[in-house]
Amino acid sequence: MSVLPEPLERLILALERLPGVGPKTASRLAFYLLKAPTELSDDLAKALKVVKSMTAFCKTCFNITDFGREECVICTDNNRDRSILCVVEDSMDVLALEKTAGFMGIYHVLQGALSPIEGIGPDDITIFELEERVKKDQIVEIIVATNPSMEGDATALYIRQRLEKYPVKLTRLARGLPVGGDLEYADQSTLLRALSGRQEL
Amino acid sequence: MSVLPEPLERLILALERLPGVGPKTASRLAFYLLKAPTELSDDLAKALKVVKSMTAFCKTCFNITDFGREECVICTDNNRDRSILCVVEDSMDVLALEKTAGFMGIYHVLQGALSPIEGIGPDDITIFELEERVKKDQIVEIIVATNPSMEGDATALYIRQRLEKYPVKLTRLARGLPVGGDLEYADQSTLLRALSGRQEL
Repeated sequence: MSVLPEPLERLILALERLPGVGPKTASRLAFYLLKAPTELSDDLAKALKVVKSMTAFCKTCFNITDFGREECVICTDNNRDRSILCVVEDSMDVLALEKTAGFMGIYHVLQGALSPIEGIGPDDITIFELEERVKKDQIVEIIVATNPSMEGDATALYIRQRLEKYPVKLTRLARGLPVGGDLEYADQSTLLRALSGRQEL
Repeated sequence: MSVLPEPLERLILALERLPGVGPKTASRLAFYLLKAPTELSDDLAKALKVVKSMTAFCKTCFNITDFGREECVICTDNNRDRSILCVVEDSMDVLALEKTAGFMGIYHVLQGALSPIEGIGPDDITIFELEERVKKDQIVEIIVATNPSMEGDATALYIRQRLEKYPVKLTRLARGLPVGGDLEYADQSTLLRALSGRQEL
């Protein structure tokens, strides 16, 4: 017999299924929502209900966009440089790069990375569509901005193999010490990359 | 102009209002919910919708219970020892104590702790109702299990002052080193409490 009322128990179970939310965090959140104004849980419930049905993927770059729009705000923006394309794994990466305000080109969202362990092959991500864009559009440079992980690196390598027959410059993001980081806390491979990629002062 | 579609933006904002969820965690959760099966966000939305309307407080102990029930499962359980009452700050504490399976008495949930800074006085928590129970019921011992914090200690002290005129034994939870803890990592005041409360081996 549970001590908690069933509706609260159900909310805790639903929250526990979120990534990074354990049983303790889930009950803390549930009790917080219970005490907080009804408006808070209502807003969250409403947002959850529409988030899937009211969003879609841009037919050009596969970034997330509003339902009913063919292309995302970046693809339809006439101020963006269409000759430089940044390839990322997912829409969160687009968001991160946009926040830097340092990139004025366009994007291509792969919607994943190659991962033989998870059974994700080239056909499961938008590599074919990337190739089609390279063939069709006037792209001068492609920045491969996949994650600096095993899967991201494998995906970058595969993209290079697949696109080297086209007259396009392929680049990737620099590796090295993160800004604000501490040398002594940097891991071995980051430090190794920072050494081998050292630049003139 | 935001890069993200409005429904997603709204979900991120709603998630950000939860305690311990910052902007980064909120977008990570929102993107996860977007990718996950619709069932996950639907379950969460449904649970959020009913959690407030389908729960109520036990009229005896003020623990959380199902809507429509007068008393909670603990107060209506005939196997519980009604002579020993444990006073806690909120329902999460009841849950924590129930998980230990080491307490077979009944509870009283204060629904908060005294806090002059936040303007929470004796009338804002269920101390009056606690006194009424002490007057009316055959309670032999009251375990004051408020949090080992400034507010919890102040509340415990106030309860002692208020109840010392009744023939009831007042106890509080032991202070000392947490099980599995490390002596060198214990903070000063915990160590001091562990020293002064030392027991025979």
